[in-house]
Amino acid sequence: MFSRVTKNPWPVGEPQLSQDVHPALAAAARAAARAYQEARQLHTRAELREEVADGADGTPTMRVDALVEGAIVEAAEASGVNLLSEEAGFVDHGSAATLVVDPVDGSANAAMGVPLSCFAGALVIDTVPIEALTVWFDTGRAWSAKAGRPTPFRTSGRTRLRGASICMMRPKRGTEEAWTRVASAADRIRILCTTCLETMLVAEGSVDAFADPGSDTHRLMDLIAALVTVPAAGGVLLDLRGRPVEFDLDLTRRWSGIAAATPELADELIATILG
Amino acid sequence: MFSRVTKNPWPVGEPQLSQDVHPALAAAARAAARAYQEARQLHTRAELREEVADGADGTPTMRVDALVEGAIVEAAEASGVNLLSEEAGFVDHGSAATLVVDPVDGSANAAMGVPLSCFAGALVIDTVPIEALTVWFDTGRAWSAKAGRPTPFRTSGRTRLRGASICMMRPKRGTEEAWTRVASAADRIRILCTTCLETMLVAEGSVDAFADPGSDTHRLMDLIAALVTVPAAGGVLLDLRGRPVEFDLDLTRRWSGIAAATPELADELIATILG
Repeated sequence: MFSRVTKNPWPVGEPQLSQDVHPALAAAARAAARAYQEARQLHTRAELREEVADGADGTPTMRVDALVEGAIVEAAEASGVNLLSEEAGFVDHGSAATLVVDPVDGSANAAMGVPLSCFAGALVIDTVPIEALTVWFDTGRAWSAKAGRPTPFRTSGRTRLRGASICMMRPKRGTEEAWTRVASAADRIRILCTTCLETMLVAEGSVDAFADPGSDTHRLMDLIAALVTVPAAGGVLLDLRGRPVEFDLDLTRRWSGIAAATPELADELIATILG
Repeated sequence: MFSRVTKNPWPVGEPQLSQDVHPALAAAARAAARAYQEARQLHTRAELREEVADGADGTPTMRVDALVEGAIVEAAEASGVNLLSEEAGFVDHGSAATLVVDPVDGSANAAMGVPLSCFAGALVIDTVPIEALTVWFDTGRAWSAKAGRPTPFRTSGRTRLRGASICMMRPKRGTEEAWTRVASAADRIRILCTTCLETMLVAEGSVDAFADPGSDTHRLMDLIAALVTVPAAGGVLLDLRGRPVEFDLDLTRRWSGIAAATPELADELIATILG
């Protein structure tokens, strides 16, 4: 199929972290960026995309995911915190603190070289997420937030779907009609294939909302950074069907995440998707 | 509508240009990046998005387009080449060389802060495009090519739509069914809202193809950099309906651009869109 075997030649950015990011989160993000950089240098796109295992969450693990998660497992052990990650599952170090991590959000982008993938994680004490960090690999741009404390970046404040710019997951079987309803009602639609980065664009006001239009694709690690960050930026992070998005060691749970600049926009988006 | 008036805080990258880029193209790209950086610092997102004029191509001009094009007009004058640009039209400096430029491809992204917009241009001698340059503003990543000379980066080489990753323009009125046929046949779909950057992802092998599924949105400056670069990387750049993509001072001409890793993939994509 592929006549040309190529590597991605572009560099991964150094994570641009502020001083007050929790050391365990910072160490995990830095380890992830280094591991992704090495993976790009050592492996072709086809190798990074290869499915090498089935993750703890029941979905296939690409080589790029496995390599980056391996580095994060080591970082979490050195930090002395527990880890909950999509491939490794729960790694118990007997701490009250747990890092919940998506090592590579946008795995297909990361493998093929589409420059839209990121590290996303949150620090949970007992069952309460208290801090989050998302780092866009290609640039090192980082968004951090502490639960209940306003962030310097803010959502757009938009309240209506008409005129809005919306990121959505691609239409999947059973969600095509909902997808089309949103695409018709909004001003602009984008599909970037990286939930964690797209929800940060909502948080910083570059797009007005992000939605899974009902495919129940999201696992806890796809949403937990946004769960802390988007509200701290003035927006909301909800499930389409009203299920609470909450810490749980059961990685079979799924949600359809909705991130929006305002509660009003989230309500209209949900009503439009549910028809 | 917007309760929060914000600026985009992220830096624009310095264009990473190789030594052999034509000085007029290099000067235009550097002027564009500087002007976009200044525009982000001086203006809010809402101000950058504001429509301030109607361009020579008949479409509205956002403030961000006008500011960046202004800098390119000056750069072209200093270089002594003619300029053909979407807002200014043809600026004749009596040269055999004409820069054909899209000052800001992905204007809506550039205005709102979605980090996917670029400068794209080609140097045309008489009517023949001989060199192209595309620069992604947010990172400074650059793709340059000379007509008929192989580039170091290569397309993916994929020949079939099944299993392919495709970038498409968003579905518009009249193209919804074609859009859905492609989305159903391909493995992955993305909508990045920046034709010039998406065609460079085809050229470098990060996605397999890009398509306007029949909306005839593309003007010459949306396609001319890809017209030089994608074939030099081993792929093809065609119009959906077989119209020649060629230099023309008439900016009312439109195409539905198809960029693909191979002629076989372009054929299957076109057949799928045309149904």
